[in-house]
Amino acid sequence: MTTSRVADPETSVETARLEVLRLAMAPLFFQAARAARDLGLLDALYRRAAEGADAGALVGATGLSRYAVDVLLEALTVSGLCQPVASADGAPGRFAITKAGVFWLKDELSRVHADFVHHVCYLGAFKLDQALREGRPSGLPALVEGYPTVYEALGALSPEVRRAWDAFDHLASDSVFGDCLPLLELRGGHLVDVGCNTGRFAQALLAFDPRARLTLVDLPRQLGQALTAVGAHAARVAGVALDLLDPSAPLPPGADVYWMSQVLDCFGEDEVRSILSRVAAAMGPASRAFILETYVDQQRSEGARTAIVGTSLYFTAIANGTSRMYASTVMRRLIGEAGLAVAWERHDIGLAHSLTCCMRADAVAQPVKP
Amino acid sequence: MTTSRVADPETSVETARLEVLRLAMAPLFFQAARAARDLGLLDALYRRAAEGADAGALVGATGLSRYAVDVLLEALTVSGLCQPVASADGAPGRFAITKAGVFWLKDELSRVHADFVHHVCYLGAFKLDQALREGRPSGLPALVEGYPTVYEALGALSPEVRRAWDAFDHLASDSVFGDCLPLLELRGGHLVDVGCNTGRFAQALLAFDPRARLTLVDLPRQLGQALTAVGAHAARVAGVALDLLDPSAPLPPGADVYWMSQVLDCFGEDEVRSILSRVAAAMGPASRAFILETYVDQQRSEGARTAIVGTSLYFTAIANGTSRMYASTVMRRLIGEAGLAVAWERHDIGLAHSLTCCMRADAVAQPVKP
Repeated sequence: MTTSRVADPETSVETARLEVLRLAMAPLFFQAARAARDLGLLDALYRRAAEGADAGALVGATGLSRYAVDVLLEALTVSGLCQPVASADGAPGRFAITKAGVFWLKDELSRVHADFVHHVCYLGAFKLDQALREGRPSGLPALVEGYPTVYEALGALSPEVRRAWDAFDHLASDSVFGDCLPLLELRGGHLVDVGCNTGRFAQALLAFDPRARLTLVDLPRQLGQALTAVGAHAARVAGVALDLLDPSAPLPPGADVYWMSQVLDCFGEDEVRSILSRVAAAMGPASRAFILETYVDQQRSEGARTAIVGTSLYFTAIANGTSRMYASTVMRRLIGEAGLAVAWERHDIGLAHSLTCCMRADAVAQPVKP
Repeated sequence: MTTSRVADPETSVETARLEVLRLAMAPLFFQAARAARDLGLLDALYRRAAEGADAGALVGATGLSRYAVDVLLEALTVSGLCQPVASADGAPGRFAITKAGVFWLKDELSRVHADFVHHVCYLGAFKLDQALREGRPSGLPALVEGYPTVYEALGALSPEVRRAWDAFDHLASDSVFGDCLPLLELRGGHLVDVGCNTGRFAQALLAFDPRARLTLVDLPRQLGQALTAVGAHAARVAGVALDLLDPSAPLPPGADVYWMSQVLDCFGEDEVRSILSRVAAAMGPASRAFILETYVDQQRSEGARTAIVGTSLYFTAIANGTSRMYASTVMRRLIGEAGLAVAWERHDIGLAHSLTCCMRADAVAQPVKP
């Protein structure tokens, strides 16, 4: 084994070995952290704060066996969610929650990601290698049999899995719509929501702009759900059921805005190019197309990048086998190949998002930044 | 969310969030690292060493799709198994393997752990929380239905799972037997191998000591396998089929040495006490009992501790729901409660092991260190 010709010759053998053993045991530590959260152990530690608690007190607080408490405390320590601490009288065996432990327990972002990985991704990720070889979501049958992609399967998921999927989906989008809506400058115009999913954006837009008209576009099941969600505003809303994968399906023409919020990451590059081309074909000279995405190469926080890179693996193993969280450089190339031009782009919106405003390439003399 | 009263107030919010997002996505990164190893991507990076390679070259070297290569390179980068590097001409998009990447690819210890976690632990660990609540190996049915513990189920495991289990089991023990054999000072005497498993120790002992006599003790299936393994030395070997969980099953009396290599970690505390009591009852005043274990509190390497703590979670979810890798302090207490006394103890043997020599408490005037 030669480790001299590596990218990081300064890394010690001991550090490298620790990293790979952590990675090798990672699924077990993930499950232990979830169990400690869901069985009340982390909360019991949280309530004792920095003074900490010993295993006996934690057995009393949780009703777990001493065995379960001991095994979990060791696992949480390895994962950095708690630490051994000295008590006032110097007795050993006390543990206190760390800042990471508090995040794991209380932070919605962390919780939603962990639940998504457990309920939606975990079992199917067992077949990630097969999905990568075959370009199919080989892990999807671990959730539900008989569907080509997760999007057709959404209605057939168990309530628990669907809840985790929805929470993840909504977490990513809800945080940014408020920032995006004024940037659309729709002003009572007509917006086509391409891939409207459960109707979250539609609801936000209809409340924000009391004159806006909206056409929702998605698969029949998602469309039905979105139309139900916007029921109170039905007079301003139309729906078009279509499969964005069908290259012969045209989009409603001549709208002021075509809105694509986290929909392109659900498709492979060829499909993205095809969808954007159909958007371009539907657009008038003054139409604008907005793409809201989280790009792997536009993250200032390493935590956000970690979550986004991990989410690509969900697309590979579970969702469709071909899509991913893109790099902004790739999206720019696809935008150009589809006959669109970037008018302006803004990064660092919401949790980790970028908003790109495009026009028809032949309608843009000079890109303008707002 | 209060994070002021934690064990590590100096940790930044950004660091804590990164840690928990890494943990939340950990099963996906584990599977990506396995896939990169098994699909040849890591090897292709290894062959390019520090110069690195771009995605195009790696597609050519592996036969994977560009999509698969891109998704895996990003995941490997997050996991620290490769790094972006600048090429001589400054072109971006090149990646080089890290020291951790070389370990993940080439180091037997890392590989055996990763394969064990994937094939034996991964699917069943989904039910770790249930196992902790119920004290049963709730994840075992993910491998094979209808067995109370993994030990009865070994013969029914798929060949792939069994191979990973054996490799893990043997990795832990093979590295230490050579160091232990002289310390037993058996010198042609009689040794009882309590929990002989597949007969690895028996083979090593019979080769090391050409006059030693051996009695193998285990469940019928394991005993049969061990007796087959030592066939060439059959004249010096006897076998006793018994279930160590049966408190009324006595052990063969009066042997020079009772040998327990990584067998006590397969039992809960009450069972360990019961087994040690039966060993004590079988021992004569000059008999010695040896316990070979990996203790969570006797590890100098954090990597070893990580692997050992993780292994406890295997015992919880898959093996039996009640056993674990013990702390040496707990084992000392159980030894005393069983009527034994520690004559001497040696740590840091082999990978991560400790060897403890016990005698009957009533036969030890003064503990002696060799």
